[in-house]
Amino acid sequence: MNEFELIARLTKSLPTNETVVAGAGDDCAVLDLGVPEKLILFKTDAVVEGIHFTKETPPEKIGRKALARCLSDIAAMAGTPTAALVTIALPKNFAAEFVGKIYDGLNTLAKKTGVAVVGGETTTNPERILISIALLGTIPRARQILRSGAKVGDAIFVTGELGGSLAEKHLEFEPRLEEARWLAEHFRLHALMDLSDGLGGDLRHILNASGAGAEILKSAVPVSRTAKLAARGNSSAKPAFVAALTDGEDFELLFTVASKDAVKLLDAWKKKFPEVKLSCIGKIVSGAGILIRDKHGAHQFNAHGYVHFA
Amino acid sequence: MNEFELIARLTKSLPTNETVVAGAGDDCAVLDLGVPEKLILFKTDAVVEGIHFTKETPPEKIGRKALARCLSDIAAMAGTPTAALVTIALPKNFAAEFVGKIYDGLNTLAKKTGVAVVGGETTTNPERILISIALLGTIPRARQILRSGAKVGDAIFVTGELGGSLAEKHLEFEPRLEEARWLAEHFRLHALMDLSDGLGGDLRHILNASGAGAEILKSAVPVSRTAKLAARGNSSAKPAFVAALTDGEDFELLFTVASKDAVKLLDAWKKKFPEVKLSCIGKIVSGAGILIRDKHGAHQFNAHGYVHFA
Repeated sequence: MNEFELIARLTKSLPTNETVVAGAGDDCAVLDLGVPEKLILFKTDAVVEGIHFTKETPPEKIGRKALARCLSDIAAMAGTPTAALVTIALPKNFAAEFVGKIYDGLNTLAKKTGVAVVGGETTTNPERILISIALLGTIPRARQILRSGAKVGDAIFVTGELGGSLAEKHLEFEPRLEEARWLAEHFRLHALMDLSDGLGGDLRHILNASGAGAEILKSAVPVSRTAKLAARGNSSAKPAFVAALTDGEDFELLFTVASKDAVKLLDAWKKKFPEVKLSCIGKIVSGAGILIRDKHGAHQFNAHGYVHFA
Repeated sequence: MNEFELIARLTKSLPTNETVVAGAGDDCAVLDLGVPEKLILFKTDAVVEGIHFTKETPPEKIGRKALARCLSDIAAMAGTPTAALVTIALPKNFAAEFVGKIYDGLNTLAKKTGVAVVGGETTTNPERILISIALLGTIPRARQILRSGAKVGDAIFVTGELGGSLAEKHLEFEPRLEEARWLAEHFRLHALMDLSDGLGGDLRHILNASGAGAEILKSAVPVSRTAKLAARGNSSAKPAFVAALTDGEDFELLFTVASKDAVKLLDAWKKKFPEVKLSCIGKIVSGAGILIRDKHGAHQFNAHGYVHFA
């Protein structure tokens, strides 16, 4: 049983109440706590030594990444982050200075993104550092953009470049908060999420939630320079295109809009965010699964994105 | 450096914003997100295998305890819990059935207390299970009861019985949600918290936050039968009274009210909660620290409650 199978099983019949607008299964839970014009976003995410960072990772970057991952989930709802709690589990003989630097990295990103750090907890995890972040955010009531809204004919967009993130970007990425809010304010997004497990895996979440398939134009997928270099230098490495679809930890936005909005959106984006690439990589089609179209034709894409526990 | 020293250092200059009513340092963070008549409570808490439970603990009780600890913090603000997220870190070869039972225990308590479980995350922690819960709740705007409101002359109360919790109670305690809300609705509580690290340590949090001391009447402290039996059977064990002050994990309420309200409160409590003991254990005095009064006089109490990392 892998992570996704376990989650599917565990989230089948969770307790609910009248505050729940969207529970498990999207980037954030969405709650109605009675704020007149807003809904509340609620998200947790954890990073673990040896998995999401190493013993050699500078502590400031560990703290930064822990928060940035959660912020990316708020971006995936086109939301505004508000307040975070930090739970940090430490081996017994931790160095206080090291822990202080984890907080420094986290606090710097919190300040930059307007997030209050309102406390948390320290506990013991004897073998390795684990940091779990809980984050609250808000969205305007009329603007819930879930994974389930993609429609046949939609254009599929992705920000930035994909693949090779583990070389460096996973510690330094900018959560696409501003970009996502701008998109949601100016265009009617049908589906939106952030890429954490790789386009090949994450796009399936939109397709499954929306009951549709996708056709991706291979030449349109923005493969990162890092992924290209890694493939070029090592014959046993993944081809760069496969890396772009499966490496994970890109933390870019993946979204769909009606095809009639696609050109207008691309033009407006280039003016607003000239330094952030935006690529139309394909379209939503009827059916299920992902078809990759290249000069030889169309092929089913069966590889998955990164799966924990796999 | 122990847990409390580390937290003190880390929480000195945390990022804040206009939503923060009370940040780090109380049982829950308190946020104003714009709900007309309510403030939002926000809390995280983690349990770790080998520390808060063992390999032999039945999985339903692990899940129950993970949520119950957070609920006790909502009770410590006299709040109403709303929604929880569950982060569970698992060794690679986890048994899905075991994890399912952890969720069963958690979900049963969630249903009973009106909490929606709105998702969470699974990740890998190779050596041991760790569960981190993030919990939201609400309180009426006019009813924030912090640790810092104790006044000289206040009567100090504690619910239930103290000590010996690790024998059994720590897996089965009932978070005092209903009791705390009833107290806050009917009496003017000056300070309120839940007992997680032991009366001897936790009372100091109220005293330090309120700038006062306490005089405790030894004979009035409700020592649990379990703590008494443990002390009787074993000459190297803690005396039962010391166990009651230092064992930790009692998850009872500790609060202060003006002395003029004390008798009325005790009488009303007995009618409302005939099965839950309530003890007036002493009073808030000027100065600092804890004085224990017995038939031989008054002594400073210097032992601490349970300190992680100690």
